[in-house]
Amino acid sequence: MTNEFDTQILIDSIENELHRSLNDLGEAELRQYYFMLAYHLGWEGEGAGAETRGKRIRPLLLLLSCAAAGGQWQEALPAAAAVELIHNFSLIHDDIQDNSPIRRGRETVWKRWGVAQAINAGDAMFTLAHMSLLRLDSTSSPGIAIQAAKTLHQACLKLTKGQYLDLEFETQEQISLEAYWEMVGGKTAALLAACTELGAIVANTSQSRHEHYRDFGFKLGLAFQAQDDILGIWGDAALTGKSNESDLIARKKSLPVLYGLQQQGAFAKRWNQGPVDLSEVEFLAKQLETENARRYTEEFANRLTDEALQSLFAANPSGAAGEMLDKLAKKLLRREL
Amino acid sequence: MTNEFDTQILIDSIENELHRSLNDLGEAELRQYYFMLAYHLGWEGEGAGAETRGKRIRPLLLLLSCAAAGGQWQEALPAAAAVELIHNFSLIHDDIQDNSPIRRGRETVWKRWGVAQAINAGDAMFTLAHMSLLRLDSTSSPGIAIQAAKTLHQACLKLTKGQYLDLEFETQEQISLEAYWEMVGGKTAALLAACTELGAIVANTSQSRHEHYRDFGFKLGLAFQAQDDILGIWGDAALTGKSNESDLIARKKSLPVLYGLQQQGAFAKRWNQGPVDLSEVEFLAKQLETENARRYTEEFANRLTDEALQSLFAANPSGAAGEMLDKLAKKLLRREL
Repeated sequence: MTNEFDTQILIDSIENELHRSLNDLGEAELRQYYFMLAYHLGWEGEGAGAETRGKRIRPLLLLLSCAAAGGQWQEALPAAAAVELIHNFSLIHDDIQDNSPIRRGRETVWKRWGVAQAINAGDAMFTLAHMSLLRLDSTSSPGIAIQAAKTLHQACLKLTKGQYLDLEFETQEQISLEAYWEMVGGKTAALLAACTELGAIVANTSQSRHEHYRDFGFKLGLAFQAQDDILGIWGDAALTGKSNESDLIARKKSLPVLYGLQQQGAFAKRWNQGPVDLSEVEFLAKQLETENARRYTEEFANRLTDEALQSLFAANPSGAAGEMLDKLAKKLLRREL
Repeated sequence: MTNEFDTQILIDSIENELHRSLNDLGEAELRQYYFMLAYHLGWEGEGAGAETRGKRIRPLLLLLSCAAAGGQWQEALPAAAAVELIHNFSLIHDDIQDNSPIRRGRETVWKRWGVAQAINAGDAMFTLAHMSLLRLDSTSSPGIAIQAAKTLHQACLKLTKGQYLDLEFETQEQISLEAYWEMVGGKTAALLAACTELGAIVANTSQSRHEHYRDFGFKLGLAFQAQDDILGIWGDAALTGKSNESDLIARKKSLPVLYGLQQQGAFAKRWNQGPVDLSEVEFLAKQLETENARRYTEEFANRLTDEALQSLFAANPSGAAGEMLDKLAKKLLRREL
């Protein structure tokens, strides 16, 4: 592996590009307006720092996909900043929609500045994302900038569709597994698919390789969500209950829960009786496991992981970036550390 | 005037293009999701019809500017739909931020479907706007599509800046007139400036004509807002008080109010004592007039109207479209009809 793909260099470059995007706001002019966005991105305010910035997984996937597809990752930086800004725009609005007061250990934007300003901060972040993406016209070419913008727009539209379904699910008793996957496809997988595809687009590879990269990102997203659903019920934090991290308490209609409800057994009976208590979490998780919900979700995660890695193989990623992409995917899917 | 510029033909074409944009949602798939947006645009649900659709002023200005600058207005339709969608995205979010239950005589989106779904519906509308704009790459050219997209992004950023200031003003006692104009420049004028400039961009005229068209739209927006501020206090609906339409009751810090507060006279004294009653509206409006706030605002509106029309003259609009543009501007500024 060459030094060129030292993750830290990529992360630093992403951070620089994000700063460049936020500078479009005109920092000096409206300091507090800039501060809201910089706070959310983990740059400013109490608790600012690497651990509150998120892992910048999406821009990393994008840059590595670009390099692995034979492109220059530096050319893809405007797109990398754009996907991270889109992700963060959706988090700012999600936190309002879910009424979440805390993210990454800090107050959320709406909690700190109110719902009205938080909606607007998200809208600003969304705009900065699109502005960033079009800078591809100078790092790459106008044709690629337009193709990339259209790809990102489609992902944003799927994001809002997924969010629509997720909000609808809260009020529905019965949710089909198909509907669940459509929701996850929009909320999680569509943006990851856009990341890997945008890398290939900037690298200007063949259409068929674009599709393999996109499939890789999409399936990575689905598998990742299934893993996350497992951890939300059987992970250490969820089971010990100390941090209230169990999806059973949050009444999140995750994949194992939906599977469990379909069985119409003891789990479904208890779930339908109303809110689950901290003291019941361990027993109920065990019951759900007995009813095969864990095995079902694990098999699903494994199958999607295999398919993601097959798509990556078909994309034929090259060089050190290709190796890192494979490694990053396996790390995300907990196949290896 | 040729038949080509019959306003109804333009309006119908705008409406068709908007339908085309919304079809990107995939109507059949998620009927209710589509319905929220179609409802807001005045196409579906109780009370749907021309009077609930708004006047589509922005896309009209855009198409007329394009034709008056020597372009084919049909080529500009994707941009026309885009500015109308941006306007409506901002209305959906504004209504949440202002806690407004009614728009154009009907329940607002958040009132009907809740804040969470309304935030998301706005985000979807925002995305559809950007998707629509990039269709310029086929009606016009990729280079023009990128230039137009960047122009629209800048306007969106100014929109969020104006909204930030407007929300901040609610909590501030003292607001300078400079800050007021910066807010109005963002909230009202920036998008109108983008409309007229986008028309010129699609017409592919010279840079200096772009600037004249942009200045025309920007000043039109400022003058329009000043007019609106006058009507909000001294208009018939505001004075009769029957419909609660007085900005004095809404405690809106409009231009006449800010001017009045600066005078530190009887108006300021009463305003600072707290909420204004229906029964006081006529007297307080009179007091504000005595303190010259009306004359100040009218002089401002007149000056900006003159400047807007001078910019339009400098842009040298041609043919029937040019005449209609002049007419539309004067109508908006209440110089005639």
